Amino acid sequence: MADEPSAQEPSTQESSGEDRLIARYFAPLATDPGALGLTDDAAAIVPPSGCDLVVTTDGVIAGVHFFPDDPPDKISRKVLRMNLSDLAAKGAKPLGFLISVALPAKVDDAWMAAFAAGLGEDAKHYGCPLLGGDTDRTPGPTSASITAFGAVPHGAMVRRSTGKPGDCVVVTGTIGDSALGVRLRRDESLAQRWRLSDAELAHLKQRYLLPEPRNALAEAVLRHAAAAMDVSDGLVGDLAKLCRASGVAAEIDVASVPLSNATRSALAADPALIEIALTGGDDYEIVLTLAPEKLGAFRADAQKAGVAVTEIGRIAAGRGARFMRNGKPLAFARPSYSHF
Amino acid sequence: MADEPSAQEPSTQESSGEDRLIARYFAPLATDPGALGLTDDAAAIVPPSGCDLVVTTDGVIAGVHFFPDDPPDKISRKVLRMNLSDLAAKGAKPLGFLISVALPAKVDDAWMAAFAAGLGEDAKHYGCPLLGGDTDRTPGPTSASITAFGAVPHGAMVRRSTGKPGDCVVVTGTIGDSALGVRLRRDESLAQRWRLSDAELAHLKQRYLLPEPRNALAEAVLRHAAAAMDVSDGLVGDLAKLCRASGVAAEIDVASVPLSNATRSALAADPALIEIALTGGDDYEIVLTLAPEKLGAFRADAQKAGVAVTEIGRIAAGRGARFMRNGKPLAFARPSYSHF
Repeated sequence: MADEPSAQEPSTQESSGEDRLIARYFAPLATDPGALGLTDDAAAIVPPSGCDLVVTTDGVIAGVHFFPDDPPDKISRKVLRMNLSDLAAKGAKPLGFLISVALPAKVDDAWMAAFAAGLGEDAKHYGCPLLGGDTDRTPGPTSASITAFGAVPHGAMVRRSTGKPGDCVVVTGTIGDSALGVRLRRDESLAQRWRLSDAELAHLKQRYLLPEPRNALAEAVLRHAAAAMDVSDGLVGDLAKLCRASGVAAEIDVASVPLSNATRSALAADPALIEIALTGGDDYEIVLTLAPEKLGAFRADAQKAGVAVTEIGRIAAGRGARFMRNGKPLAFARPSYSHF
Repeated sequence: MADEPSAQEPSTQESSGEDRLIARYFAPLATDPGALGLTDDAAAIVPPSGCDLVVTTDGVIAGVHFFPDDPPDKISRKVLRMNLSDLAAKGAKPLGFLISVALPAKVDDAWMAAFAAGLGEDAKHYGCPLLGGDTDRTPGPTSASITAFGAVPHGAMVRRSTGKPGDCVVVTGTIGDSALGVRLRRDESLAQRWRLSDAELAHLKQRYLLPEPRNALAEAVLRHAAAAMDVSDGLVGDLAKLCRASGVAAEIDVASVPLSNATRSALAADPALIEIALTGGDDYEIVLTLAPEKLGAFRADAQKAGVAVTEIGRIAAGRGARFMRNGKPLAFARPSYSHF
């Protein structure tokens, strides 16, 4: 932390307010020895023998990635899970994370306590301990950015660029729930137009609020996948990125894309929602390619891991990801979520 | 990146605006093979054999850590250098970094190009390549957060908690320039009151604008220091933290604290500025303790590295860091910079 251009409140105690905030809310989560109780400049990670480190960073900003009145324990869990999803897609086992938080003055103790509690719960659940961080006051919206570390055997990180013609394309879980969920979060009256039951409405909103990263599948991804990435900006755009990186084409059967019952209900009421479901993003599922002869063993491992997986198409020579319905490729106005 | 609650501009091209921004400004910097050209979910770091990874994160927010009209190439270099300073203090050799940038809509191509150019220049100079990152639009101020990685031999990261009674206390460079510099940046008329020459004014402002992290000294710190930390929140508060972590006291001779000629000029005009110099922060120097018998060898290594080092006091049994002048401890209204 550093001196700032704006006016400062003097701190009259030897231990600063920032130290107290860290000691109160974050240090109790920093149980890993490498975190040094958050009392040092840096953390130490002892890489597992023979492993590479997989590092990723992703963040959230109030009003951009979450609603300012979302429950704080869900916000912290969401940003951690966004990063865990990247590790899962790379076949990596979580080692820990750093968090940078920028807080407006209005953030109170109850908010901080809930934010830290959610973070601690998921850190424990996913075996991904807090190792360090940074806290700042901001005149802007609340934001949090996480850098997560994972381990894979040397050279084994599963990439986007290694898909091959002939590979099956497989996706985890269901696609599109979150993209519909955020629209329901903005305007709940859509639930009536989409003829959703209360349970379906709740399901879609929950899928937006709190992703379920597929870390249970990481080992199977590592063992079987030719290429993989996490689906966070929409299946259409993300698969296009994988195809570009691999120098291949994909042909996807839209009818095979796994959808929740809630999303099926919404699509029955408004078939045009298929574009939002396929391009809206925030799925935090994994899309992967693998040689057809590996599909059986992969399915068996996925079942053991308790993660639903669905074959949705094939990789071919060429360029671009085509989403086919009734023998014709769908065209999308906006294939991928982007801030810019 | 994820779907957002606020309204979105549709992207009509297969490659998103965010991809283009990354490809245009950041990918050219990502020359390390582990960065995968910034086309994957994550980066891979191959830890040097027998080494631990040292990880640290620090960020800047416009209007808090820098002035919104600071040159963009200085902003990016400053935030990288803040993190490099932490690595230096831990005795770590830089391996690379991730950057998360949040940009308001008003940021233009020229700003981004300069920001990226400065970042690339320092990444090369310090041997710390860009490995990955995250870019977001924000309704708030521009901000950038970096996570930097370094390597130390297994178990050898230099900590805050290992200072011992009898150790010498040593500090690099000069203290207080930046704290005076930021005040001059806010109100240049102070230069007249402090009777500074133009060169002295420029020196102090430059020290605030762009820190000079002591990475050239990292190997000597690793070899000789008992405990060390980077001085970023003010020497008084930071040394108090080191003492707390080590369970020791320090007695510092204020007259020995190294000051630049510019700071000496200001202090001659206004002796009360000593408090700002010692507590104001943003020094990005290293304070370390070491056994007296190691001081000679350390000085020799520091000279080879081209880094000025000054003995300023001793570690003793007890608690707290006392800054002595004319045989009496100075009292500080605000010993350390803190946001909270």
